[in-house]
Amino acid sequence: MRSTILVNEAHVIALAKAEAINRSSAKKLLRALRKLGKQMTLREGYEDVHVMIEECVTREVGSMIGGSLHIGKSRNDQVATAIRITLREEMLKLSNHLLTLENSLLNLAERHTRTVFPGYTHLQPAQPITFAHYLIANGDSILRDEQRVIEAFSRINKSPMGSAALAGTSFNIDRRLIAQLLGFNGLVENSLDAIESRDFILETLSICCMTALDLSRIAQDIIFYSCADVDLLELPDEYSSTSSIMPQKKNPDPMELLRAKSARMIGNYTTAAATLHALPSGYNLDLQEITPLLWHSLDTLRSCIAMLNALLPKLNPKPCVENQMEFTATTEIANILARDEGIPFREAHRITGRLVKEALEKEKKLRDLKRQDWEKNIRRKLKSQTMKNIGRALDMRRHIYAYRTEGSSNPKQTDRMLSERKKLVRSCKERNQLTQAQLARSLEKLRHAYLFTSKNARYRSHVNRESLICDPS
Amino acid sequence: MRSTILVNEAHVIALAKAEAINRSSAKKLLRALRKLGKQMTLREGYEDVHVMIEECVTREVGSMIGGSLHIGKSRNDQVATAIRITLREEMLKLSNHLLTLENSLLNLAERHTRTVFPGYTHLQPAQPITFAHYLIANGDSILRDEQRVIEAFSRINKSPMGSAALAGTSFNIDRRLIAQLLGFNGLVENSLDAIESRDFILETLSICCMTALDLSRIAQDIIFYSCADVDLLELPDEYSSTSSIMPQKKNPDPMELLRAKSARMIGNYTTAAATLHALPSGYNLDLQEITPLLWHSLDTLRSCIAMLNALLPKLNPKPCVENQMEFTATTEIANILARDEGIPFREAHRITGRLVKEALEKEKKLRDLKRQDWEKNIRRKLKSQTMKNIGRALDMRRHIYAYRTEGSSNPKQTDRMLSERKKLVRSCKERNQLTQAQLARSLEKLRHAYLFTSKNARYRSHVNRESLICDPS
Amino acid sequence: MRSTILVNEAHVIALAKAEAINRSSAKKLLRALRKLGKQMTLREGYEDVHVMIEECVTREVGSMIGGSLHIGKSRNDQVATAIRITLREEMLKLSNHLLTLENSLLNLAERHTRTVFPGYTHLQPAQPITFAHYLIANGDSILRDEQRVIEAFSRINKSPMGSAALAGTSFNIDRRLIAQLLGFNGLVENSLDAIESRDFILETLSICCMTALDLSRIAQDIIFYSCADVDLLELPDEYSSTSSIMPQKKNPDPMELLRAKSARMIGNYTTAAATLHALPSGYNLDLQEITPLLWHSLDTLRSCIAMLNALLPKLNPKPCVENQMEFTATTEIANILARDEGIPFREAHRITGRLVKEALEKEKKLRDLKRQDWEKNIRRKLKSQTMKNIGRALDMRRHIYAYRTEGSSNPKQTDRMLSERKKLVRSCKERNQLTQAQLARSLEKLRHAYLFTSKNARYRSHVNRESLICDPS
Amino acid sequence: MRSTILVNEAHVIALAKAEAINRSSAKKLLRALRKLGKQMTLREGYEDVHVMIEECVTREVGSMIGGSLHIGKSRNDQVATAIRITLREEMLKLSNHLLTLENSLLNLAERHTRTVFPGYTHLQPAQPITFAHYLIANGDSILRDEQRVIEAFSRINKSPMGSAALAGTSFNIDRRLIAQLLGFNGLVENSLDAIESRDFILETLSICCMTALDLSRIAQDIIFYSCADVDLLELPDEYSSTSSIMPQKKNPDPMELLRAKSARMIGNYTTAAATLHALPSGYNLDLQEITPLLWHSLDTLRSCIAMLNALLPKLNPKPCVENQMEFTATTEIANILARDEGIPFREAHRITGRLVKEALEKEKKLRDLKRQDWEKNIRRKLKSQTMKNIGRALDMRRHIYAYRTEGSSNPKQTDRMLSERKKLVRSCKERNQLTQAQLARSLEKLRHAYLFTSKNARYRSHVNRESLICDPS
Repeated sequence: MRSTILVNEAHVIALAKAEAINRSSAKKLLRALRKLGKQMTLREGYEDVHVMIEECVTREVGSMIGGSLHIGKSRNDQVATAIRITLREEMLKLSNHLLTLENSLLNLAERHTRTVFPGYTHLQPAQPITFAHYLIANGDSILRDEQRVIEAFSRINKSPMGSAALAGTSFNIDRRLIAQLLGFNGLVENSLDAIESRDFILETLSICCMTALDLSRIAQDIIFYSCADVDLLELPDEYSSTSSIMPQKKNPDPMELLRAKSARMIGNYTTAAATLHALPSGYNLDLQEITPLLWHSLDTLRSCIAMLNALLPKLNPKPCVENQMEFTATTEIANILARDEGIPFREAHRITGRLVKEALEKEKKLRDLKRQDWEKNIRRKLKSQTMKNIGRALDMRRHIYAYRTEGSSNPKQTDRMLSERKKLVRSCKERNQLTQAQLARSLEKLRHAYLFTSKNARYRSHVNRESLICDPS
Repeated sequence: MRSTILVNEAHVIALAKAEAINRSSAKKLLRALRKLGKQMTLREGYEDVHVMIEECVTREVGSMIGGSLHIGKSRNDQVATAIRITLREEMLKLSNHLLTLENSLLNLAERHTRTVFPGYTHLQPAQPITFAHYLIANGDSILRDEQRVIEAFSRINKSPMGSAALAGTSFNIDRRLIAQLLGFNGLVENSLDAIESRDFILETLSICCMTALDLSRIAQDIIFYSCADVDLLELPDEYSSTSSIMPQKKNPDPMELLRAKSARMIGNYTTAAATLHALPSGYNLDLQEITPLLWHSLDTLRSCIAMLNALLPKLNPKPCVENQMEFTATTEIANILARDEGIPFREAHRITGRLVKEALEKEKKLRDLKRQDWEKNIRRKLKSQTMKNIGRALDMRRHIYAYRTEGSSNPKQTDRMLSERKKLVRSCKERNQLTQAQLARSLEKLRHAYLFTSKNARYRSHVNRESLICDPS
Repeated sequence: MRSTILVNEAHVIALAKAEAINRSSAKKLLRALRKLGKQMTLREGYEDVHVMIEECVTREVGSMIGGSLHIGKSRNDQVATAIRITLREEMLKLSNHLLTLENSLLNLAERHTRTVFPGYTHLQPAQPITFAHYLIANGDSILRDEQRVIEAFSRINKSPMGSAALAGTSFNIDRRLIAQLLGFNGLVENSLDAIESRDFILETLSICCMTALDLSRIAQDIIFYSCADVDLLELPDEYSSTSSIMPQKKNPDPMELLRAKSARMIGNYTTAAATLHALPSGYNLDLQEITPLLWHSLDTLRSCIAMLNALLPKLNPKPCVENQMEFTATTEIANILARDEGIPFREAHRITGRLVKEALEKEKKLRDLKRQDWEKNIRRKLKSQTMKNIGRALDMRRHIYAYRTEGSSNPKQTDRMLSERKKLVRSCKERNQLTQAQLARSLEKLRHAYLFTSKNARYRSHVNRESLICDPS
Repeated sequence: MRSTILVNEAHVIALAKAEAINRSSAKKLLRALRKLGKQMTLREGYEDVHVMIEECVTREVGSMIGGSLHIGKSRNDQVATAIRITLREEMLKLSNHLLTLENSLLNLAERHTRTVFPGYTHLQPAQPITFAHYLIANGDSILRDEQRVIEAFSRINKSPMGSAALAGTSFNIDRRLIAQLLGFNGLVENSLDAIESRDFILETLSICCMTALDLSRIAQDIIFYSCADVDLLELPDEYSSTSSIMPQKKNPDPMELLRAKSARMIGNYTTAAATLHALPSGYNLDLQEITPLLWHSLDTLRSCIAMLNALLPKLNPKPCVENQMEFTATTEIANILARDEGIPFREAHRITGRLVKEALEKEKKLRDLKRQDWEKNIRRKLKSQTMKNIGRALDMRRHIYAYRTEGSSNPKQTDRMLSERKKLVRSCKERNQLTQAQLARSLEKLRHAYLFTSKNARYRSHVNRESLICDPS
């Protein structure tokens, strides 16, 4: 709605420049449009808003002038432009929401850079990591999603206006002027492409879907980690429903909702893709039906991010999980036997396996095994250093310092990664603010743009784009 | 397969640098791996190739050394790396295929910059355009697809190696060295993220889907334009099946296949998305099932592009279509009445409509109407210029020159757009060649990399990445 | 909402029978529920309505009695039951809508049993059929959809009540009594299955999708048949948008909308399937999210049916289409040469093809060819009967009578098929009325059911289901 | 392939009956077709097999007779018929596979009718059930899937033959004869519908999808129940991969594969639906592309069923799970307080909740609470019976006998349900055998069918369908 009015304002200025309408008519039209803009509410029913605007304006300025609003444009280019105006703002908002989510993850991670947590594969505890490492991993996928949002933004922020129904128009409309007035960074140049292409919608739906799937993984993890049997995370009471009769039972309601809602994104993408599949060239009314999917996916994704964002700061790992994690040390023990004792790697594997099996059968803890037990099993004397290292590996809080690779779960790596990511988030937020400010400035300018009324005789030849616009002062 | 061997080669070099294995073992391993690499065939069964490589190598170098191939890595990081190596090449190929397709469209367009063609909306002829304009519009959507391919490439071309099972490893593996040896432009840094994330697969599937949908629109258009009733395009005999009994009937087989195959891309995306939905963190075997979808979508898309590419050069508009297009001139006639005669725009619309209706009822052509007919209907005398302009609008070949906006169907615009796009395609192809050459150089280097055998005492402290690699000469 | 109140009413009666509450409490609860039922509106927010009902009732009867409403049941079985109650009615309505649509198709067909129409393959005119034949073909797919609706109905119309949270309950609830009171035709027996299974929703979504795809084919046909180039059908003005400026152009808006809306059904199915995929056993809140998809698909499908239903009676083939259809006679001409002249079939094919080609090149009509032309081409004298038959084949109105197979486009077959289908629709409608009457009777009875207040000492042993219910008189 | 040959055989017999070919030619054709049938392999490349058959036969019998094989039929009806012949057999096999799976579930259940198992909601243990109850719940969803298979079978098992290209044919082909010879139970009557409709494919894909989702739930449960933290089920070693180094870790590989493969069914459905969406009437080559999806979904589903079937007999609950389940007794304790002590239900809830909380805080077991503890909390003396009942509720093995409702987890209910389902499976298997025998008999008859060679003068008038067929004896 608001977008469509803006499109009309910019178009009026271009019509005046093209001398398709005179200055006085242009001014009246602008005034009527701005009056209308103040009365109305945002975003909805795009495809029907056009007639409405023309009618309202006509009521204001008379049918003679009002009718000229339609010169050199069509519902087709107007709809495409209005969607892009609204969508580019939504994309910036989405980017900001994702950066805020990333911040939530990083803030939580900062409190848990030394908090031991089991790393799972195949839903089985495999190796000790830190909770921070887990959170950064998930954050990194969010950062890639955010990157895609920004890349799509640059394809969205192009102007179709001036394409009219599909072929362009014989009025001398300055398309670049309109684009600039509306804050676009260029044209969707070919007029047929400009009115028929909706790949930017599909791309956005796909980004929403990918992001939602990343969130669904976090939701699934939280549900699993907080279930009574696994008991790694404590759900905050506000974000879980308890039964009055079963106070030990906390249902992870918002995460279940997030999990379900993220599936909706797949369906929205599928619907849009099936709609566009084998649709003939040119504008077809089918296109109208995919726009609501766009807003739906964006709204749903926003609510999913909000649910997670609200929960994260209150999410805490249960203390002492390391007691249950002893067997996740086996990989490192085999590494030690290979490195310190020169035992061939595959054999070190086999030995460790045998030891674990024995401990399981005797219902013993590995850390309760004596040096003799190890030596008997390995069939050789062990260095003292080896035993020390094994002891360290079995102590989860020290274990994690053994990791030496870049990006590993070693707390020193975590500290570095955290600070780099915090910096990245800050710079991305600044970039967004800059872009938003530019857009706002363009539209602000447009909102106050007046046409020169001077009887500038040389107008036709010397006018440049900038001269058409000035602050009302 | 080939990718996995390369990954192992690079890993061996990193193991040697980390002194996890000695130089002599490293050399034997490299030799065995290269021997294996020459015997084998490409791309398939990734997830099972790992054991096979280790076994073949072990048969060659003995279990003592062979077993050490597995130090500090895991199937998890290896699979992710191998997929990325193969995929980045596929993406460059896809980019090239799309650029070739764009060239086909542009070449055909060059022959038809003045060929009048009806522009459709709602499957109804709406305004005259040129066939070139139609082709450029479709090409522009292909160019956006190509842009997405390249953006995804930069996310794909990162190295997960050194992440081991999920947490990193206690061996001092230089991840950046491996990345460099394998031609990657950086790391998937967080080790858990590195082994679990498959968003790059989903992103690729989405790009394949969007591209396929763009192709499906062209296919649908060709089917429609070449059907007996519409008869705008002549299908080349080689790309249509004719019945021996109905020689007038040409079935647009390849375009029907393209249309159907493009739907498969939607399903592949859906499958991958549903697989990743709510999958818990860490490596799960489910991930193995989405990789084949990736190769399937890429292969299918390639075959769709090929079908279109083969057909395009032989596709020709039927002559004299402009005879049937008279009514598509009405928008421009209304424009003329408004511009030349100062008739209010909406009224110009109504007048034109009335004239068309009359002509239809009298089964007359608009161009057969006399000046008096026009003047009677409009209820005023018309300027001679107006009548001339109307005459020009009714002559489709001159009509198209009336369009004045940038990106419109005016042949002058088309000429400019064509030359700009040809230039763009050239520069994109050059960029791809450069990237491919870099990748090839990295891998070539890796293939011939040997380790210093000098007993360089200062090795541990001074080694730098480059010193590890030298040409065999 | 209404459904949930009904469920509560039936449950109260079962609680009384189980002596879990006394008669007086039961009566008060029933009264409160019925009062509530009169104040409220239908269908929505199922999952939250439960607390609301309990609270409203408690406000009416006090917390002592109100609290007992929850005995022996759970939100889980209640939700599943309420959805099934609403859905079974929707399914009957859907069946009726489909039967009405079939009637529209049949009624239109009755007017066109002799109206020649081209039968297409590969979007190319292939053989003459009648418009009625085309309509019956589409109707037959609708009839299969309707059959699936009824089959699904029998799986939907089962009662989960008495399953409580998932395990059943220790209160002696008579599940069959509740089922009977609510008009169900049996139980979803296993209590865990009863509360967790949503396959009936997925089945319904699939039926909606298949039906919508059948409708989308009709919509696509109408768009194609009514486009200016093909011009086989005349769209009624009310169901197409015309531009004031291009009166010859009729945009098939509702059919484009139908086409797009039908794609939504695919996405709804995908969403529900992805939500249910790999969801663990038992009730999960995710289930709540798929119910709205169900109502959305049913509503959208209904609107699609309505759009088609409104348009069909006013849809008319353009006259004289047979003039353009001559070449569709070739198959039959080959048949004639084979049958009447004993020319081998494949050769008859070749000959006909040659003739058509010649005619095309000479821009002649087949019917303008002389006997000599035929004989020269076939290289033999032809019987007079052959020439007569060929003449008949070239006259489309007589051509269609040549078809001899059951179910063919011969008007005699059409007449028979029409009358059989009309009868079938009638009997299906009667069956639905019967089922609806039964459901209405059950619920009517429930709405007026009161409990015996007599101090029947033998109650516990002799009570039977029927004795619990009597009319309020 | 085999199906297409059968179709040709039946068609030859109908051609002979229609006197479109003479007996001697018919015999030669039959002989050639049967010879061909013995040389060839099954199911694949349907759409291309037609030409191949005609060519092979022609090589055998000469082009004169060979060419007549094509009389009165088309690739269009032939393809549709061949798919239906293959598919109906696949559906019967699928039905049998599902019944076998149900048997596996029931057999396992029989061993565990008294094995206590936690019933989950929201992935939290909620109430005690038996493992058998869990298994029956999942089996019941499988039984509904099987029911759908059979219902679809009856729509699939109809004959399109005799519809030729789309309009029927002027040869007097007895469609019902062909249907009968091929074992169909009727016709797809309308000839256009017969060759264009593929809703039976979509329906089958949907059934495969729904079934796969039911299996995915079981897979997800097994993965969760067998993970180290939950430890309710012991995975058999053959159906899990263990790491040599982590013997305590069992990766549920086949269940992860099943989970992933089931997602593929969603995608296959989506692809087919998107392909059929808005496809115009008549045969289009697109239809060819959805048939492979059908075989893929059926094959994949079969392999999923097989994976589960192999695992189930070796799946065992870990002993003593009841020790960890105490808190799942709370619902029943509240029931007892309400029933035995007349405490209002909602208050009974609150009291129990308070007790549980207290026990949790004091790290006590509920069963360690003394009578005084209960009475203090409830603030009243309790009957001895109450305490006994509470004690019983806290003993999981006795708890489950408290359930009184039909279909509940009470072992007596389980016994009954098991025996009823076993009976049902038997009768369904018998029904399938009967159907398969009938089909086999039809095809056997067809395979040996010869044409009467007697110069039966009264042939034309008195021939009935049966007389055309006789055993070769």
